[in-house]
Amino acid sequence: MSRPEIEFWFDFGSTYSYLSTMRIEHEASLRGLQLRWKPFMLGAVFKALGWHGSPFAAQTAKGRHMWKDMARQCAKFGLAWRQPSSFPRRAVLPHRVVLLAEKEPWVADFCRAVMERNFVHDQDIDGTEAVSATLTSLGLPAREIIKAAEAPWNKQRLREQTDDALERGIFGAPTFFVGDEMFWGNDRMDDAMDLAQSIVPPGSKPPPMKHGPCR
Amino acid sequence: MSRPEIEFWFDFGSTYSYLSTMRIEHEASLRGLQLRWKPFMLGAVFKALGWHGSPFAAQTAKGRHMWKDMARQCAKFGLAWRQPSSFPRRAVLPHRVVLLAEKEPWVADFCRAVMERNFVHDQDIDGTEAVSATLTSLGLPAREIIKAAEAPWNKQRLREQTDDALERGIFGAPTFFVGDEMFWGNDRMDDAMDLAQSIVPPGSKPPPMKHGPCR
Repeated sequence: MSRPEIEFWFDFGSTYSYLSTMRIEHEASLRGLQLRWKPFMLGAVFKALGWHGSPFAAQTAKGRHMWKDMARQCAKFGLAWRQPSSFPRRAVLPHRVVLLAEKEPWVADFCRAVMERNFVHDQDIDGTEAVSATLTSLGLPAREIIKAAEAPWNKQRLREQTDDALERGIFGAPTFFVGDEMFWGNDRMDDAMDLAQSIVPPGSKPPPMKHGPCR
Repeated sequence: MSRPEIEFWFDFGSTYSYLSTMRIEHEASLRGLQLRWKPFMLGAVFKALGWHGSPFAAQTAKGRHMWKDMARQCAKFGLAWRQPSSFPRRAVLPHRVVLLAEKEPWVADFCRAVMERNFVHDQDIDGTEAVSATLTSLGLPAREIIKAAEAPWNKQRLREQTDDALERGIFGAPTFFVGDEMFWGNDRMDDAMDLAQSIVPPGSKPPPMKHGPCR
């Protein structure tokens, strides 16, 4: 039986995507939701919208507050946190790996490991060396996966997925989709999941009727 | 005995300030917090920061999503909602009235009434006619209050409070302060209140010691 779906659009360089990435697999599983990992290039979206990079970098007052907010949010969710010395970090190759591996059983582990490199260990996340170390730490065949991730057709998929993000109205990360309903920001993850849970997917059985003394 | 304080910085034109304004007096009262109403001119803050008006107006993708999010948030909090035909609405005189009346027993009622004019009844909120109608609906002496609100010293206070907002790092509304700790956005109201509740104000008695069989 098909489960209701939630799409998780994220960029490994995005602070608030870190909060969602660390929690979403567990939450989706608790709620019986099918999770779709949707990496995209947030910087390219900002550029296409005519914004000068991340609002957190372009707007200093907002950026200053974001770092305080992230420290508080991580404490609230029990997540480790170190403010990265480089922000936002580029993450082309990790995004390509996720696209390639979106249905592999290790995709969630990989996503969390990349995020922890960035926001806990303050290490670079892009490039062969960083991604190879991440994959190897998970016991995965790094060389083989990276070679496949860098195939022209897979590179093209990341460009297309970023174009899709723009077409669907995405302007930030994380963003969640439940059908055509868009929810922006880690603060809306629970609302998106509530909506997904309320939808009976096509082809599934309706909830059982209750028979009892009350009508 | 003094109660822990929470400062609520808001603009009557701001959508997310509507969500907080409708809930904050009740929540603060439940938690035993002293609430400080802090109106300021958000548009002047945006201008001083070099932003071209509200991000929701300047960034169309973000603005489009905001209207959907507001409808959903109002449904979630059980608040009435109509998307205003003019946004963001100017609110100089209502802000001056709040400054004048910040310690009056009717200040919360006035704030909610102004917000409902804007975001439920889609009516203008600035100017003598609108403010007079709002005050009269609450059984208050409109002419007298407006005259006092428009006194030069009170006009100057609104300018000074807006300058204070900038100096304290405010870049959006609503913003909450608990001591020097700043929280941005209706989504952080509960976190700000949690912090306020955890603080024992100076001059108050410490929580009673528990005596019992356990050490």
